[in-house]
Amino acid sequence: MKGLQVRSKLWLEVDGEPLLGNGRDQLLRLVHDHGSINAAARDMGLTYRKAWSLLKAMEDKLGRALVLRSKGGAGGGESQLTPEALDLLAKYDQLRRGVQELVDAKFAELF
Amino acid sequence: MKGLQVRSKLWLEVDGEPLLGNGRDQLLRLVHDHGSINAAARDMGLTYRKAWSLLKAMEDKLGRALVLRSKGGAGGGESQLTPEALDLLAKYDQLRRGVQELVDAKFAELF
Repeated sequence: MKGLQVRSKLWLEVDGEPLLGNGRDQLLRLVHDHGSINAAARDMGLTYRKAWSLLKAMEDKLGRALVLRSKGGAGGGESQLTPEALDLLAKYDQLRRGVQELVDAKFAELF
Repeated sequence: MKGLQVRSKLWLEVDGEPLLGNGRDQLLRLVHDHGSINAAARDMGLTYRKAWSLLKAMEDKLGRALVLRSKGGAGGGESQLTPEALDLLAKYDQLRRGVQELVDAKFAELF
């Protein structure tokens, strides 16, 4: 069929509750890039409070720290992702890419 | 990680607009089961008008008839899926199942 395409979305849950999807993945990556929750939140059009609560919710669900916050001076502290967070992002990325390839292949086979 | 699960969603688009996802798939299947758009709409908590407009939108996007409506007597007409609709549903089902298996396998491999 002309113009037909397949789209897919993939996310992780813990005990049936969302843990990591595209939005939170982007938030963590921006924290990593900027070294700052505040700058990451701004990039995503979120308040600092909202970004912080998303990160906190993920940490609570996983029972692990994802972001290390060091109190800073005038400019505010630096934030860094923990090795666990980097590992989670790397795996999620591999999962997403792998699945996208498989979806495309399966679609090409059927349609 | 304990309790970690992967979830995925898959849908078809035509020229970047949604054609078929879980909801419309269910609607078409119910029309098929009941032989009636009205009964299908009722099962899904939709008005007849809404169900009809969803079906119409799909037909317009595909440029093909999906439901054949035959005018009936007092009880209203029967509705039947066209062979094209049945083919589309069968392929979408295969795609969905296939992808679910692949997602599960990929997840098990990574996490």
